[in-house]
Amino acid sequence: MKRAIITLLTDFGTRDYYVASMKGVILSINPGCSLIDITHQVKPQDVREGAFILSNVHSSFPRGTIHLCVVDPGVGSPRRPILLKTRDYFFVGPDNGLFSFAMRGEKVKTAVDLTNPEFFLSRVSTTFHGRDIFAPVAAHLSLGVKPEKFGNLIDHWEELDSREPEIKGNNLVGEVLHIDAFGNVITNISEEQILQFSRGAPVIIEAGGKRIRNLKKGYWEGERGKLMALFGSAGFLEISVREGNAQKVLRIKRGDRIIVTR
Amino acid sequence: MKRAIITLLTDFGTRDYYVASMKGVILSINPGCSLIDITHQVKPQDVREGAFILSNVHSSFPRGTIHLCVVDPGVGSPRRPILLKTRDYFFVGPDNGLFSFAMRGEKVKTAVDLTNPEFFLSRVSTTFHGRDIFAPVAAHLSLGVKPEKFGNLIDHWEELDSREPEIKGNNLVGEVLHIDAFGNVITNISEEQILQFSRGAPVIIEAGGKRIRNLKKGYWEGERGKLMALFGSAGFLEISVREGNAQKVLRIKRGDRIIVTR
Amino acid sequence: MKRAIITLLTDFGTRDYYVASMKGVILSINPGCSLIDITHQVKPQDVREGAFILSNVHSSFPRGTIHLCVVDPGVGSPRRPILLKTRDYFFVGPDNGLFSFAMRGEKVKTAVDLTNPEFFLSRVSTTFHGRDIFAPVAAHLSLGVKPEKFGNLIDHWEELDSREPEIKGNNLVGEVLHIDAFGNVITNISEEQILQFSRGAPVIIEAGGKRIRNLKKGYWEGERGKLMALFGSAGFLEISVREGNAQKVLRIKRGDRIIVTR
Repeated sequence: MKRAIITLLTDFGTRDYYVASMKGVILSINPGCSLIDITHQVKPQDVREGAFILSNVHSSFPRGTIHLCVVDPGVGSPRRPILLKTRDYFFVGPDNGLFSFAMRGEKVKTAVDLTNPEFFLSRVSTTFHGRDIFAPVAAHLSLGVKPEKFGNLIDHWEELDSREPEIKGNNLVGEVLHIDAFGNVITNISEEQILQFSRGAPVIIEAGGKRIRNLKKGYWEGERGKLMALFGSAGFLEISVREGNAQKVLRIKRGDRIIVTR
Repeated sequence: MKRAIITLLTDFGTRDYYVASMKGVILSINPGCSLIDITHQVKPQDVREGAFILSNVHSSFPRGTIHLCVVDPGVGSPRRPILLKTRDYFFVGPDNGLFSFAMRGEKVKTAVDLTNPEFFLSRVSTTFHGRDIFAPVAAHLSLGVKPEKFGNLIDHWEELDSREPEIKGNNLVGEVLHIDAFGNVITNISEEQILQFSRGAPVIIEAGGKRIRNLKKGYWEGERGKLMALFGSAGFLEISVREGNAQKVLRIKRGDRIIVTR
Repeated sequence: MKRAIITLLTDFGTRDYYVASMKGVILSINPGCSLIDITHQVKPQDVREGAFILSNVHSSFPRGTIHLCVVDPGVGSPRRPILLKTRDYFFVGPDNGLFSFAMRGEKVKTAVDLTNPEFFLSRVSTTFHGRDIFAPVAAHLSLGVKPEKFGNLIDHWEELDSREPEIKGNNLVGEVLHIDAFGNVITNISEEQILQFSRGAPVIIEAGGKRIRNLKKGYWEGERGKLMALFGSAGFLEISVREGNAQKVLRIKRGDRIIVTR
């Protein structure tokens, strides 16, 4: 038994037994783990959404935290199960790009293809690697097993297309990255990029056919029910409605274009 | 590291990374904390609902528990971040009335305006004080930092209008306080108030245009599918349908009138 | 204080304070407990669904785990509160069949009718035995109190009708047991039963008026958007759509017939 923090991020939902199965497996191997849910409501099989959420939260956790992430449309197929070790964290899950946004701020020290069945459950199903492979690997890792023991070292892993905003003529063109539970529309345009583009001049933001001229410091500056733009807690341009739902006002979805003009 | 219990009550939902960010920040400061979710599904920015839920559960926790509560429509505005210490508990969150129902059964010993940035994250955003102010304050508190260290002592804080039931002629008039996930309609009329009003005589309850004559001892006494009234686990008059949903039958919402006649 | 794992499975939802009340009560008695949620989203009062979920997950937990389960349409009625002890686990909850599927793989060593109010909260409501009876009993159990102390030994408890699949002429006829959050349709037909029935010959599965000829090894073998059948992580025949929702395609619900022909 050893103290350790394991976070869990999945698309399993919370109605079924799937998440609890993973937790039971982990605690059977290391009852000293603290298990912290990031979320289990990633849209089913939406690797990009999982990657976005993870990248916004992984570094809030203490050094040594193990991030166990399973959004895995290819479960049972030849996609590899992997472990990435950075200076401060461990990441365990499928090799499908799920870790790629988090890795932008991290430097991978060791990367392993999880091939050693010694650390799996004795019977591995084809449909539930979360329980049968990833959970036991994370648990053994939390006991201090060295990353190299879990399989073959690798030097390449899947990355998602990062879709950075681009300057096109007089426009800075980005897209909707995420819509949160308040209906806040989070874009892929960072505060730095806007400042560089605008050189301090006022900007207009176009989204869902509407134009927003207000760049506010915080939600409380907005007028109730009116669209506003601001920089959200993750450092990205965000469109909000004070005490309202910007997504419903704009009828916008992830991937839709956001145009900034000066 | 020190053992401590911190509960979390927010309107952040569980789809995003917001709650996990707070937990990561807390565990980075005090990895010995047990983190217990009260709920994260308070209706967005509904301070009154958050206050109601907190007041029904805070005293079930052991002495010394820190209740960290963030339903905060004024985040980033001049509303104060506060800490209230009672005989048994600590409460950390925005000064907007969120604690006022819980305080009815508590006596505040120390109240502090959280002005000391030493206990905040080094960079405080304007949109996410849950992560940047409240979580680190709760974590330092769990390590034994004295309340006075977090800022200026205060002797006044926001309270929500309590909306007590009133006697009007031959009627006792209250309102719907909360509707739970089963569709049970919880009113602001306590068992004591009904007894005092009825002096033991049978009462009729009017709600959503329907009249209910049955005051039952428990759900099992009701007829399947029929409306009944009883005193719920929080001590308030409640309207229920056995194995059904009273809210749907009554088409009623929070704040709607409930009339008791004898 | 003593280390112990208590899992919680209820139909209370996560919007209200009900689950947190139980956790507060437990931690007030034994602050050393690790509390693990199985789910709180069992369909309200659906004992059969709760029993199915529990039976798929209880044995993933370490020896000594206490499974505290409350799906309790008869709360406050004469239905008994019980404790079942098996070789590896404890089960605490209402005697309404909730444990009966889990018990198929377990041998009950001690069964107790919870009649000793010494281990209840001092005031027991008629509507919330989860908080007032089951949570404190589980907490005292986690401190090492012997099962016999909690009440009278019993040798009989409620069991749900198990509804095994049957062979009718040339057909193996089962039913839908559960639909998970991905829309996977889980049947009550086990891998063994199919093998025995088919003796290796190819089978056709009829469900919701459609015929499925494909028995796949894993989700990744299916064509995107097309129905397939496979054996799921619980060992039962399951109908799925790769990166889709089989329940929506089949318009099927729990209890509906599944027919296997060879």
